[in-house]
Amino acid sequence: MLLGSIEAGGTKFICSVGDENLTVLDQVRIETTTPEITLGKVIEYFSQFADLDSLSIASFGPLNLDSASPAFGSILNTPKLLWKNVNIMTIIRDALNVPVFITTDVNGSAVGENLFLKQAGINLHSLVYLTVGTGIGAGIIVNDQILGSNGHPEVGHIRVIKHPDDADFHGTCPFHDGCLEGMAAGPSLKARTNIPGECLALDDPIWDRLAYYLAQAVGSLNLIIHPARIVFGGSVVNPQLLSKIKKDYVQLMNGYVATDHLDDFLIRSCVPNNGSATIGNFALARKLVRV
Amino acid sequence: MLLGSIEAGGTKFICSVGDENLTVLDQVRIETTTPEITLGKVIEYFSQFADLDSLSIASFGPLNLDSASPAFGSILNTPKLLWKNVNIMTIIRDALNVPVFITTDVNGSAVGENLFLKQAGINLHSLVYLTVGTGIGAGIIVNDQILGSNGHPEVGHIRVIKHPDDADFHGTCPFHDGCLEGMAAGPSLKARTNIPGECLALDDPIWDRLAYYLAQAVGSLNLIIHPARIVFGGSVVNPQLLSKIKKDYVQLMNGYVATDHLDDFLIRSCVPNNGSATIGNFALARKLVRV
Repeated sequence: MLLGSIEAGGTKFICSVGDENLTVLDQVRIETTTPEITLGKVIEYFSQFADLDSLSIASFGPLNLDSASPAFGSILNTPKLLWKNVNIMTIIRDALNVPVFITTDVNGSAVGENLFLKQAGINLHSLVYLTVGTGIGAGIIVNDQILGSNGHPEVGHIRVIKHPDDADFHGTCPFHDGCLEGMAAGPSLKARTNIPGECLALDDPIWDRLAYYLAQAVGSLNLIIHPARIVFGGSVVNPQLLSKIKKDYVQLMNGYVATDHLDDFLIRSCVPNNGSATIGNFALARKLVRV
Repeated sequence: MLLGSIEAGGTKFICSVGDENLTVLDQVRIETTTPEITLGKVIEYFSQFADLDSLSIASFGPLNLDSASPAFGSILNTPKLLWKNVNIMTIIRDALNVPVFITTDVNGSAVGENLFLKQAGINLHSLVYLTVGTGIGAGIIVNDQILGSNGHPEVGHIRVIKHPDDADFHGTCPFHDGCLEGMAAGPSLKARTNIPGECLALDDPIWDRLAYYLAQAVGSLNLIIHPARIVFGGSVVNPQLLSKIKKDYVQLMNGYVATDHLDDFLIRSCVPNNGSATIGNFALARKLVRV
């Protein structure tokens, strides 16, 4: 089999070709500019592979994932205005003439993380992939299936209780005063300190606030869906922050639910080269191939 | 088929016998006292039905629902101390010698609500049953399966942002200052006003606070699992409160997700005689019968 993967992000499209063992055979990085230019290059890239069997897209969103809708496969109300209402799935499918699957970027990564752990002998009944980067989002896997495949979990916008030191900070979300993403995604660091997150010292007290919010997110995820594991992706959750999150989470639960085995329960992604969405896409594309 | 249902609650056990069409043929109510007395009466009741094929229990908890555990089927760390570590499933199964299924009370109700709607021609890809009574809990159905069947969703203990008028109220939960259950379950009404909830006027401003918290719960549930419907059970959510919840929910989402069709999305249980757990139990018991 020859399988295609498109990880469609706001700054770049990672396009890969792999085999049925989910091994990457070739990969290219295409800058996200206009739909015409970017998708043109994407199509040009995959057109080299005449034997391509199928392809899966893990895309930024919001996406229309309602297969009964005429707009199925299109990007919805995104702040990247040029991409609004672009039916990325149809464009790719019609140009390449292969079966195409589409899901959200976080769902693709969640599928990949789940498979990666499975290959390492760790079989989980459920897993949440929680990415904390420019935004915050989650993909949820239950019994090897994407949860809410026809919806788009928008975990980043759950409300959180403000840290006392954030009383005057409203967050960076244009919709909500004090949602998780507005208070704890990467841009919130710069919005508070005027220093980009990647330049902040690891012992800066600002990280305590992020831990406070992300621990609340872990709490709500655990109390609502009780996943076997939460895997952090994205650039924000460094090992120091993860330790703080664990500490705050224990305090927040206050003995009500078991908080042992936290080092297994809460981990950072361990897929090499940030490649969970690519592995996930290959697996999702593989399902489209009739054998 | 002759199917048994036990709805095991903190004040009463509702025991029912039904057929494969989920029709109640007989029912009895047994007071919850000690495990010996109550379970003795339960066993005595079902022993009358020599043809019983199987039985399902929807029980208060927390429960051990890990089928790999030696304590599978037992009640865990409950404030009802006499019931702690009682293996309700094993006791019933060994006494009646029929296959026995066990799940949480809210899971049983969620299964029942989902089936009831299905019988009315409403097929949903997912549903949350959210009960607001003495406590708050949720059962979640996705693709006709219980979500987290080997866990115990403890939705009642997610943290909520306090209403300004509740600044000095810490809630009734012994574990958490300001969790959903502590701030919005029935006992919180009396804790604030010294008047039992059922005697409070429907225009008392205290209901605004409950709506504020329950709207947050609806928001988190929707943003995390995106269910097709949320069904309120329990005694607290009256029609006036439901209207307030809808209003607050719209305000909370602030246009970020669609909030039309709210009258379909958020409903009160419409199963007659508060019977959702019984219907659910019959359906779960039916699955145990080899045909």
